[in-house]
Amino acid sequence: MTMGDLLVRNVRTLGATSGDILIRAGRIADGAAPDGIAVLDGGSRIALPGLVEAHTHLDKTLLGLPWYRNEVGPRLIDRIDNERSARKTLPIDPLVQSARQAMLSVSHGSTFIRSHVDVDTDCGVAGIEGVLATRAALADIVDIDLVAFPQSGLLVRPGTVALLEQALRMGAETVGGLDPCAIDRDPKGHLDTIFGLADRFGRGVDIHLHEPGEMGAFSMELIIERTRALGMQGRVVISHAFCLGMPDAGVVDPLIAALAEARIAIMTTASASRPVPSVPRLMQAGVVVCAGSDGIRDTWGPYGNADMLERATMIGLRNNLRRDDELMLALAVVTSGGARALGLHDYGLAPGCIGDLVLVEAETLAEAVAQHPGRRTVVKRGVVVARDGVPLPAPF
Amino acid sequence: MTMGDLLVRNVRTLGATSGDILIRAGRIADGAAPDGIAVLDGGSRIALPGLVEAHTHLDKTLLGLPWYRNEVGPRLIDRIDNERSARKTLPIDPLVQSARQAMLSVSHGSTFIRSHVDVDTDCGVAGIEGVLATRAALADIVDIDLVAFPQSGLLVRPGTVALLEQALRMGAETVGGLDPCAIDRDPKGHLDTIFGLADRFGRGVDIHLHEPGEMGAFSMELIIERTRALGMQGRVVISHAFCLGMPDAGVVDPLIAALAEARIAIMTTASASRPVPSVPRLMQAGVVVCAGSDGIRDTWGPYGNADMLERATMIGLRNNLRRDDELMLALAVVTSGGARALGLHDYGLAPGCIGDLVLVEAETLAEAVAQHPGRRTVVKRGVVVARDGVPLPAPF
Repeated sequence: MTMGDLLVRNVRTLGATSGDILIRAGRIADGAAPDGIAVLDGGSRIALPGLVEAHTHLDKTLLGLPWYRNEVGPRLIDRIDNERSARKTLPIDPLVQSARQAMLSVSHGSTFIRSHVDVDTDCGVAGIEGVLATRAALADIVDIDLVAFPQSGLLVRPGTVALLEQALRMGAETVGGLDPCAIDRDPKGHLDTIFGLADRFGRGVDIHLHEPGEMGAFSMELIIERTRALGMQGRVVISHAFCLGMPDAGVVDPLIAALAEARIAIMTTASASRPVPSVPRLMQAGVVVCAGSDGIRDTWGPYGNADMLERATMIGLRNNLRRDDELMLALAVVTSGGARALGLHDYGLAPGCIGDLVLVEAETLAEAVAQHPGRRTVVKRGVVVARDGVPLPAPF
Repeated sequence: MTMGDLLVRNVRTLGATSGDILIRAGRIADGAAPDGIAVLDGGSRIALPGLVEAHTHLDKTLLGLPWYRNEVGPRLIDRIDNERSARKTLPIDPLVQSARQAMLSVSHGSTFIRSHVDVDTDCGVAGIEGVLATRAALADIVDIDLVAFPQSGLLVRPGTVALLEQALRMGAETVGGLDPCAIDRDPKGHLDTIFGLADRFGRGVDIHLHEPGEMGAFSMELIIERTRALGMQGRVVISHAFCLGMPDAGVVDPLIAALAEARIAIMTTASASRPVPSVPRLMQAGVVVCAGSDGIRDTWGPYGNADMLERATMIGLRNNLRRDDELMLALAVVTSGGARALGLHDYGLAPGCIGDLVLVEAETLAEAVAQHPGRRTVVKRGVVVARDGVPLPAPF
């Protein structure tokens, strides 16, 4: 893994006045730059720490393929079933597709990506193999963390648990899960299984919870109970958590307090069409919040571009953040919130931190969030990996 | 007003197979192109009719000014009051600012803009004067329609009615209004006044209705009653109409039916943070729907870029449109829906229509909506006014 030396000149760190950032052996450093060090002129742009893509599906984007004509039915299960069948007819190679999306992410400034990767009895662990190969190939460009994800259900599809175990042994870091009531029809069974796997393998959990209202709140209670019982505080993420978007504060407020106490993080896409958790309310309660693009241009939907700074704009729009100080919440979600939720070490722009950063042409941090200007330059462990929005050629 | 001759070669009209579009004397024409006609190579891009920006505030954008640090309170009235006071301290010249935003709109493909323009007892009709001057200066580049808009209230600020009359005499086309209950505190008085003006001057009405729930539904009923009584069917737009986003179908469905019957159009921004009308539901009921950017980077909020194709993406995200056929609804809103709502004549790409179009590099119409690719080329009445996303120099 390359650990670069780089002097980034004339940048405004987190919007402060102009200065330099020194990176030595891949980490932000104090002191004077040595003679002959590589220099990047920041052109007075704002330096942010590398953006964190905390939830996407690298294995199944259709980026680079002919336009997919979406004629899918309206239910979640329609989309799940359609995807499994489309995977047999479309030329989706998880290695090629995940590399395409990862490089798109890099071009926008993400230096860390958590990808849920489908594991099921149709495709087995082919997706895991592909994304692991991309991770190895792009190791000097972007960090990728894999969640073994039972997209088609766990207990409803016998054989899936063994495949998840296989995925974890192959190198997937995190145990995934999905709607224990609505999809798996057995909340106790589903959650006991995935928390059991996490406990046995010593891994974290990241569970998709689309379930709305009281059903989702019930599943969330079961997740909180298991997190506490197994001492997994700080190692569990609940993705989407639409139930926290319901209007009944009498249900939502105690749940949020329990999430904070159990140190369970929430991942939001700031969906405009679903009830979503309030980002300010979660953060005020001390819950760690991260964000993700979710699927990018796949059989589920035609949207997305993997830009986490645009995601911050969407968080701002969804949560009606207008004041400059409010916009800083959205910025925190796509930077430090992601790092905390995913357990990244030495994240940030202070000396000693990993030398990941993105340069954005904006007058203020608030402008960077509200307008997500393009043409960014991105540095990974002291090496320039994208310049003015164009990623360096991938190594394959 | 320039009426250009242009042969647009090698374009896919509304996503169809490649062909040419001939424009003669500013209108789409049949037949063979004459020798020596100016030629634009479309590069196999998709041709759409010019996009319609149906609701913005050209007079008060802060585009091109130093970043405005937003520290405004949370209520609508806080933002209204803050804006009136900021207008005294910031260098906001309505002519300069409206021209900046209009050219940004043109660069994204809008060929028609409806702008609400503030009229109040502090600024008088200075905004109207400025935007009228921009309209004259940009007459060959973009069409602009002005709504005389009592942003700070009508009856609560004596003297405003006379200023609205003055604005209409100066050349503003349409009578504006604002939250007759919540802001003006006198729904009957407010609506009788603005519909009275519209009737006396022979103009249409476009009213901001942010009022939520039952209050908004009440105001909407009063608007429908007056539209019918004065025979103004087809000449009234209700902007925002958040009350139609309330969950109670027993209230919303009859209102939608009444809007369709009275041929009142709805303008939506597809706000992610407020209840909004369902675009598919309105269109299925036969209500004309148009869309707008609303304020772009002003004292109200830091967002926006005047891109109506990105607005179509936001309409898609807000209404959970995923299928290709569903995405066509969002495209209709920012094209033909805008034209119908604002009463534009000869709109479209058929022979005889005004020669306004935008070229978008996308494989399919659905991709154009879901991904809003940039670098568009824009034609106004047969003259190229933006090329690959860069507008031609404005004439001042």
